[in-house]
Amino acid sequence: MFTSKKSFEPQWSEEPPREGTYRAVFKWGAPDGFKHPNHRLYAMLKEKFNMTDDDFREKRKTGDEPVVCDAPVRISQDQVGWFKNTIGAENVHADDFSRVKYASGKTLEEAMMLRNGINGDTADLVLHPRDKEDVKAIVDYCNTEKIPVYVYGGGSSVNFGVRCVKGGVVLVMGTYMNRILEFNETNGTITVEPGMMGPEYEQILNDAPERLGAKRSYTCGHFPQSFEYSSVGGWIVTLGSGQQSSYYGDMKDIVVSQEYVTPAGTIRTLNYPSTATGPKVSDIMIGSEGAYGVLVSATLKIFRYTPGTRKRFAFIFPSWESTVDAAREIFQGEFGTPSVFRISDPEETDVALKLYGVEGSPFDKIMDFKGYRPRERCLCIGHTEGERGYSKNVYANVKRICKQYGGMSLTGYPVKQWEHGRFADPYMREDLNDYGIMIDTLESGVSWDALHRLHQGVREYIKARPNTICMTHASHFYPQGTNLYFIFIGKMDELDQFRIFHRGVIDRIVAHGGSLSHHHGVGKMIGPWMDAHLGKEQMGVLRALKKHFDPNNIMNPGGSLGLDLADWEKRKAPGHRR
Amino acid sequence: MFTSKKSFEPQWSEEPPREGTYRAVFKWGAPDGFKHPNHRLYAMLKEKFNMTDDDFREKRKTGDEPVVCDAPVRISQDQVGWFKNTIGAENVHADDFSRVKYASGKTLEEAMMLRNGINGDTADLVLHPRDKEDVKAIVDYCNTEKIPVYVYGGGSSVNFGVRCVKGGVVLVMGTYMNRILEFNETNGTITVEPGMMGPEYEQILNDAPERLGAKRSYTCGHFPQSFEYSSVGGWIVTLGSGQQSSYYGDMKDIVVSQEYVTPAGTIRTLNYPSTATGPKVSDIMIGSEGAYGVLVSATLKIFRYTPGTRKRFAFIFPSWESTVDAAREIFQGEFGTPSVFRISDPEETDVALKLYGVEGSPFDKIMDFKGYRPRERCLCIGHTEGERGYSKNVYANVKRICKQYGGMSLTGYPVKQWEHGRFADPYMREDLNDYGIMIDTLESGVSWDALHRLHQGVREYIKARPNTICMTHASHFYPQGTNLYFIFIGKMDELDQFRIFHRGVIDRIVAHGGSLSHHHGVGKMIGPWMDAHLGKEQMGVLRALKKHFDPNNIMNPGGSLGLDLADWEKRKAPGHRR
Repeated sequence: MFTSKKSFEPQWSEEPPREGTYRAVFKWGAPDGFKHPNHRLYAMLKEKFNMTDDDFREKRKTGDEPVVCDAPVRISQDQVGWFKNTIGAENVHADDFSRVKYASGKTLEEAMMLRNGINGDTADLVLHPRDKEDVKAIVDYCNTEKIPVYVYGGGSSVNFGVRCVKGGVVLVMGTYMNRILEFNETNGTITVEPGMMGPEYEQILNDAPERLGAKRSYTCGHFPQSFEYSSVGGWIVTLGSGQQSSYYGDMKDIVVSQEYVTPAGTIRTLNYPSTATGPKVSDIMIGSEGAYGVLVSATLKIFRYTPGTRKRFAFIFPSWESTVDAAREIFQGEFGTPSVFRISDPEETDVALKLYGVEGSPFDKIMDFKGYRPRERCLCIGHTEGERGYSKNVYANVKRICKQYGGMSLTGYPVKQWEHGRFADPYMREDLNDYGIMIDTLESGVSWDALHRLHQGVREYIKARPNTICMTHASHFYPQGTNLYFIFIGKMDELDQFRIFHRGVIDRIVAHGGSLSHHHGVGKMIGPWMDAHLGKEQMGVLRALKKHFDPNNIMNPGGSLGLDLADWEKRKAPGHRR
Repeated sequence: MFTSKKSFEPQWSEEPPREGTYRAVFKWGAPDGFKHPNHRLYAMLKEKFNMTDDDFREKRKTGDEPVVCDAPVRISQDQVGWFKNTIGAENVHADDFSRVKYASGKTLEEAMMLRNGINGDTADLVLHPRDKEDVKAIVDYCNTEKIPVYVYGGGSSVNFGVRCVKGGVVLVMGTYMNRILEFNETNGTITVEPGMMGPEYEQILNDAPERLGAKRSYTCGHFPQSFEYSSVGGWIVTLGSGQQSSYYGDMKDIVVSQEYVTPAGTIRTLNYPSTATGPKVSDIMIGSEGAYGVLVSATLKIFRYTPGTRKRFAFIFPSWESTVDAAREIFQGEFGTPSVFRISDPEETDVALKLYGVEGSPFDKIMDFKGYRPRERCLCIGHTEGERGYSKNVYANVKRICKQYGGMSLTGYPVKQWEHGRFADPYMREDLNDYGIMIDTLESGVSWDALHRLHQGVREYIKARPNTICMTHASHFYPQGTNLYFIFIGKMDELDQFRIFHRGVIDRIVAHGGSLSHHHGVGKMIGPWMDAHLGKEQMGVLRALKKHFDPNNIMNPGGSLGLDLADWEKRKAPGHRR
């Protein structure tokens, strides 16, 4: 019998949250979806944070209480009546759970608040528009009545993008507005409504011969980590980038044209592959995060679905410097680009090797012997795509360059592992939070020449906090630079303490040459830094557009993109409650 | 003796225009640069236009008279004094020739006017700013004094981009502001002033090891037909595309960041490879054609200079349809892209084969025999670039697809010929004009599914005019579509007649699903169509930005981008004189 040897394992939550509870609001992904820390990660957490099994015997606040929303409703019964008449009573909801759920994104801060029964900024009324006409009627009416309008896509915002800071109505786009409007195989485009969710969208394209009458299968090319719980509209309005953006491009590159309903009218941008008719309104609208108008449809590029041509690689490098140099040479080499390409800094590499059981294994000893030492070595994984000859040529060049910069091949196995779990990691957050451990991320776009300064500057700040893990990777590449994605984990469950720490990371990012965001967008969380980051002249441009589209400031008001900062500034003080 | 057999040849102009003459204003390119019609083209012109040698014995109006500009100067002596004090008296010119030259682009219409001694819209004062500070001072002062500000880059505008419709001052950017400001090999970028001309810019990059201390040679990747007489700033503000755009991207893709001096302040856009911080101000400024502000510097991507990897191809196809289908398959095939890729419709193909002496040759008979018939067959030429394996793979796929769609290889010889003369063709215009033959072009961006409709619709209009050549090609390719470039040649030297005909082509383009411009920009010529083409909502956005940047409408006023149409509308009537 081995029972005596069985080590303690925390009782990770395995139950879907009860309907109507706070946990049902903040839990990531599918209600019955879970990914728990494995025993190695559990051991590491205890070791890093000076915790014992005893710390994992009882959960902290789990948010299992029913949502109660007692914030006053600022919409009159007459107004509610108008909405019910216009879009159907069944599509207008004012229950407590809806008011909180559709005003909440997926930041750690919101989860911490909700665990404590703090609703934050709630909607007054939740609307499920059926089509573009509904959206037009709602926006026109709200503009007349000066009712704030928020938009909820997949709800995966990690920067308070969907928080209804001023109350008002929130439009849930996924209920009805999730249809394919047009498929144009000749032009290689598809026109979709914004509430279409990632997996459904990709499945339709993969099954294009059966479902769209196409000659072949396609892929959307956009796979953010939030893929399973984010919407096409959200990808667009936040300037998202998928994990395969180095080949398919950022969302900005994938969008051909868009249609927005704004208080100043409905705008359908030109639908040409390229045109020289002045500044492109599509480029002006993209990334506007609901502050100029509501995206009601978009025409996107599609790509050939050729999983059979994928070639996987993984390398271990002796140092972060050599890894970065190899990555730069790969993306400046003009031989095409890998699709997935990710490099991890030494701390992330050490954690990964530990979690996969490599640490201390015979293979670890071989790496060490060959000069790939803990706290120095760096992982690089990726794969290529596209037409067979293209994919093969990129693969050959990647291998050549990695070896040239001191990399040792680990075969394609690690990237297969990564592909398998690529969308599942966020599920672990709830487990850690249940025992008072915070895990959060911030990310930044950066030019090659500022990369090391940014990396060191942010790490210095995070690591100054005792017993805090800081893992960094780069995962979106351009000839001119990349992004840095910082993951920080520590024992911390005090909301105010977390806010101060988290905002400090943002301060460090901008102070060390990073952009405020590479692909998470701005939302209301990063808004306060926008003026300093873009400068008053550029912010003046964004505000002039805001004034044009939305003179009454009803579209996603209260700090979005830093456009109406005054209100938000008050909220910067830790501990603010509405 | 063979003299008796020597056929008549027109006395094409071989003399550089005399300084200070109208011809010195409108002649394309280098004063001593010429390319004359060869004897085959000459024969074709006579045949097509029912002309005889007698029609070529005497030139029409050649513009050899000295420029006289008697338009009143609307700038006071005090104001002139301020300019002289501020940027140096030697940089302020008010002579007749300067006032006309720096207010003239390279449209056929302007050339026809100048041949007739009609100046059109002239500047009051010509300024040669020495640096950004000069530009700032000028724009601030002009904003206070309400003096119109125009910008002259290379002067190759083909849509009245530089015409000083409201008088005022014109800034000549090429005199001083043509410097490299920064070279950043790590980031793969270079920062230049806007007055840098194409050949100098490319030469510096080719010679980067010697001139910039670089590790390798680079190329700018942007080679419009106007390359030798256009400026980097002009490429940017008009949304230009080079002949190799299918590989290097349009100018919009090449620009990383920009700096503009506007009446609302100086804007330096963010300099990141990618960022998700709201609508990107660089995208908002690009293509603004001087109507929002003056571009004073730009940071651009550079590319590896690898002429040794170039692989050339040429094919003849049995029909326009099969040529277009092959092109579409090539640009949707995801194996990389050729750099130069051009397809000619049957009329352009027939003209090309005639000019190169293929018509009637034994090779012509072989083509005919194999099913590549006159009035049906189409030429395709191009080359690949990039890293060796990439270039080779693209080449192999292009060959495969061309053959699959019925193309027969003509070896790489035709594209070598094309490369040799690629920038020289515009020189022939003056020769034709000298004998009353007009040659002009218009072009349009188009989705694949609208290509044939656009092609047929425009041809129908042009060919309805008796004895008129209409050649069409596509030369910039995307997975979603391409452009169509229409060249029309006919016997016509009446200005009003030309205007009506030319504006009719534009009408046809927009009526048949083409964009108003693919890479020539809008200028003041196409402005009147902008409202209908973009719609009032999109034009409202461009006008809101105009109001923000330039509330006094001093920046390139008088019809640019169709922003202040009222003034321009008056000018649409044929025969208008100022």
